[in-house]
Amino acid sequence: MKELPLSKIYQLLEPGPVVLVTTLRKGHANIMTMSWHMMVEFEPPLIACVLSNANYSFAALRAARECVIAIPALKLAPKVVGIGNCSGRDVDKFKRFGLTPAPAARVAPPLVAECFANLECRVVDTRLVNKFNLFVLEVVKAWSDPAQKHPKTIHHHGYGSFAVDGEMIKLKSIKP
Amino acid sequence: MKELPLSKIYQLLEPGPVVLVTTLRKGHANIMTMSWHMMVEFEPPLIACVLSNANYSFAALRAARECVIAIPALKLAPKVVGIGNCSGRDVDKFKRFGLTPAPAARVAPPLVAECFANLECRVVDTRLVNKFNLFVLEVVKAWSDPAQKHPKTIHHHGYGSFAVDGEMIKLKSIKP
Repeated sequence: MKELPLSKIYQLLEPGPVVLVTTLRKGHANIMTMSWHMMVEFEPPLIACVLSNANYSFAALRAARECVIAIPALKLAPKVVGIGNCSGRDVDKFKRFGLTPAPAARVAPPLVAECFANLECRVVDTRLVNKFNLFVLEVVKAWSDPAQKHPKTIHHHGYGSFAVDGEMIKLKSIKP
Repeated sequence: MKELPLSKIYQLLEPGPVVLVTTLRKGHANIMTMSWHMMVEFEPPLIACVLSNANYSFAALRAARECVIAIPALKLAPKVVGIGNCSGRDVDKFKRFGLTPAPAARVAPPLVAECFANLECRVVDTRLVNKFNLFVLEVVKAWSDPAQKHPKTIHHHGYGSFAVDGEMIKLKSIKP
């Protein structure tokens, strides 16, 4: 995997793809599926996200304050949904879904080798965790897979319906 | 426009479309373009969003604590980008872009009649405004345009590049 400049991160998350989130707690790496995230700042890249406090990953993120956001392309969609349909309390999801944990450089949770981008994140604000389960993260290192060119992402419309990226259009904008 | 059940709102915003935001301050209605938003709760629907504090709309939202999030379909893309390229300090954007303000039911800022969905919002948390320009909104009323069937939305990849919704896929999910 190739290092990705932190200034480019917003271009990956701003379009609203479904992502995976890895955590590590007591030596146990877990993965969840997440769609409730947004950019908060360009650089250093800040991301807000909401994890249900019923999720096994919620406690892990709250305790360890680190995660990896991994962005899957369309071909991983069945695994992405499967990951969302079970809990790390019951299963080793890396094993069940045949995904490869790869060491991150600056955080303990693993990258997901099959994803086209991986963002190593640290929790930087927890003021809205109690009320809204909302974490603010800083991306401290990021990676992309040069072998995956123009990956199409998926966007959740509820109950397993996803819009796949279609055509790209270009309009004259003065904004990043 | 037809009233939209509040329980369905997340299905519109979770996929990450570019949206418009209207505000009203001192009798002046304004519109901005926004991509930094996410769902926070299903029902009542809560939404977090980040508006640059350099934007004219930031001060209006902070002062009046109300806005409308209007979701444009693909055909409005050139106007959406145009709206993002100028400021309400200088121009009346409804007039310049030929958009129709329509009265909302429970908030003062107007709906955008040409959008396929309009969400009337009130600010419910400002704890992260000073540090991150991050507002938490509650949707108090919502509308959809029954004449716009299966609207395709746009997703910003930076500098005027947008992915348009492509095919829809359906996978077996137990999650909303």
